[in-house]
Amino acid sequence: MAAEHIEAYPMKGGDGVHSYANNSSYQRGVIDTAKKLITDGIADQLDLKNIVLSNTFRIADLGCSVGPNTFFAVQNIIEAVQFKCQCEGFDPQLLEFQVFFNDHTSNDFNTLFTSAPPDRQYYAAGVAGSFYRRLFPNDSLHFVHSSYAIHWLSRVPKSIVDKSSPAWNKGRIHFSNTEDEVVKAYEDQYAEDMKCFLHARAQEVVGGGLIALTVYGRPNDALHSQTHQNILHDLLRSCLMDMARKGIIGEEKVDSFNVPTYCMSPQELVVAVNRNGEFSVERIEKLARVTETSNLPKSQKLASLIRAAYDGLIKAHFGDVILDELFELFRKKAEEEFSLFKLGRSINFFALLKRKAKR
Amino acid sequence: MAAEHIEAYPMKGGDGVHSYANNSSYQRGVIDTAKKLITDGIADQLDLKNIVLSNTFRIADLGCSVGPNTFFAVQNIIEAVQFKCQCEGFDPQLLEFQVFFNDHTSNDFNTLFTSAPPDRQYYAAGVAGSFYRRLFPNDSLHFVHSSYAIHWLSRVPKSIVDKSSPAWNKGRIHFSNTEDEVVKAYEDQYAEDMKCFLHARAQEVVGGGLIALTVYGRPNDALHSQTHQNILHDLLRSCLMDMARKGIIGEEKVDSFNVPTYCMSPQELVVAVNRNGEFSVERIEKLARVTETSNLPKSQKLASLIRAAYDGLIKAHFGDVILDELFELFRKKAEEEFSLFKLGRSINFFALLKRKAKR
Repeated sequence: MAAEHIEAYPMKGGDGVHSYANNSSYQRGVIDTAKKLITDGIADQLDLKNIVLSNTFRIADLGCSVGPNTFFAVQNIIEAVQFKCQCEGFDPQLLEFQVFFNDHTSNDFNTLFTSAPPDRQYYAAGVAGSFYRRLFPNDSLHFVHSSYAIHWLSRVPKSIVDKSSPAWNKGRIHFSNTEDEVVKAYEDQYAEDMKCFLHARAQEVVGGGLIALTVYGRPNDALHSQTHQNILHDLLRSCLMDMARKGIIGEEKVDSFNVPTYCMSPQELVVAVNRNGEFSVERIEKLARVTETSNLPKSQKLASLIRAAYDGLIKAHFGDVILDELFELFRKKAEEEFSLFKLGRSINFFALLKRKAKR
Repeated sequence: MAAEHIEAYPMKGGDGVHSYANNSSYQRGVIDTAKKLITDGIADQLDLKNIVLSNTFRIADLGCSVGPNTFFAVQNIIEAVQFKCQCEGFDPQLLEFQVFFNDHTSNDFNTLFTSAPPDRQYYAAGVAGSFYRRLFPNDSLHFVHSSYAIHWLSRVPKSIVDKSSPAWNKGRIHFSNTEDEVVKAYEDQYAEDMKCFLHARAQEVVGGGLIALTVYGRPNDALHSQTHQNILHDLLRSCLMDMARKGIIGEEKVDSFNVPTYCMSPQELVVAVNRNGEFSVERIEKLARVTETSNLPKSQKLASLIRAAYDGLIKAHFGDVILDELFELFRKKAEEEFSLFKLGRSINFFALLKRKAKR
């Protein structure tokens, strides 16, 4: 509820050809690989007794975007809880579910609501706002889910865009190998954001409640400059520079463009959770690679995925007229240089956190 | 959660010149006239003990549209509850508020979320769906508010648009003096809808919880044909017929157009509440007339108000190209025949219902 600076770059809304709704099959794949882990986590770790007492099981999906992925994720959680009820002799019919779909205020909630499954067996609500702040009352959530969302920071670190700072990130849009000040600025922002995230959730989640995170991150021993994301950002920047050379956008504008994401490692997450002190890490592991089913060329799929995800970010900085040309250029370069991505060291990992008992 | 037929004609979204957000000062006036009644109702009737136990006070505004009126209404409720806490020696700081803003799925929730007060002292959520169905878990609401919304029925009564039925409403868009079958069809639809409304709320509202309704209705002794609304609908129909004569729209199309609203009387509401049996009527009274502050001509204000409110309804039936011409015509006719409205017998009334203790 504070009015601090939070940047919001939602996924592309609507259901058009470039929408997130139609260009997030990769993220769906990630949800599928995490499915069994969530089911197992609920079976092993969920303490039903307090919940059955209240008769309503409350779930939040943080950074849900516009669907349909969030609906699959939520359905899986509900089925796992119902199954757990059956196993423990509680009548699952007595338990009602209320699901809170959260994303930035500028997210397309209209599309989210109209595309929600009409036969859903839960009460749905939308909650607008950054998940780096409080979103829910004390002790009001039993299960928090977030998939492929907390690699978005609350903002580009201030010093990165400050010309007088040693961390000024001229000539890059994200990390590089050498500029340690830039990496340090991103690390600090991540630490601050994750502190806020965990602090807010510690108040909102009931004692014994669970948080399941699916994270786009990097292996413990990988540098930021080695991630797929950074390779991709280099390619995006080279496209932007091509357009600057043609006079379509200003070079200054490219210099001031930075991506507010951070690929954390599993180790970094554990450190943040332990520093917060209110959750235990019940499980943390790398997810299997997502197997893609579509027959489109890889460069095309990548361009569509990045366009849907970076729509808000690029529009906010450059306006929307450059999008078509930028992503056609990106597709071509990605096709020519796809071998680069093979060197990338990114992982998707899963973490299950459990709220410790409250005093 | 059932998939029955519900018609949804939301108020005009966005924040443009014809939007509900900018053309609902009358509805704001209604909220202001009900303000003291709500404050008094909370002071006299709210049982704080059970609520303070749970630490979260949950409010729903049903049929909230896009704001800003809903935010004023909610703020008033919260301040009244906080004041009541102070009077009874509870620390109001310990109580958190969660507010659910409800309207049809096709309501413009994006505008609602972006226009919510940034300094609000409550957790906000949007809930999409008809309030004639269940929207919330059992026993999850302490206070339900609905202003100027339940005169919208869930649908036009089926028989009204059935050419083979004696209730076929050819040549009218709402009631007339003579066609009793039409009135009967509307009465039945109202009774069915109000039954669903009260049945759903009886499950959602905690024992001792309150429902405050501000209703656009008619005096106990007034005929439907005598209401302002019916006079207005006659005028609207005459504009539509003018346009049909010019060939802009088909006459058949005008014949099949009907307005799904019903101006209930206070007596009818009491009958419905008693039939349901789960609530007591703690207060029911006519509201003072709204004093308008704007200096615009009355006909202009009326045209803008009706356009914003009937936007979805008219678009769904006729498409949106006719709107400008229709409402310019309407404004002119309203100017010429404003004296007609002086004969209208409509009232705004307030009702406070209290959920009986649950077994």
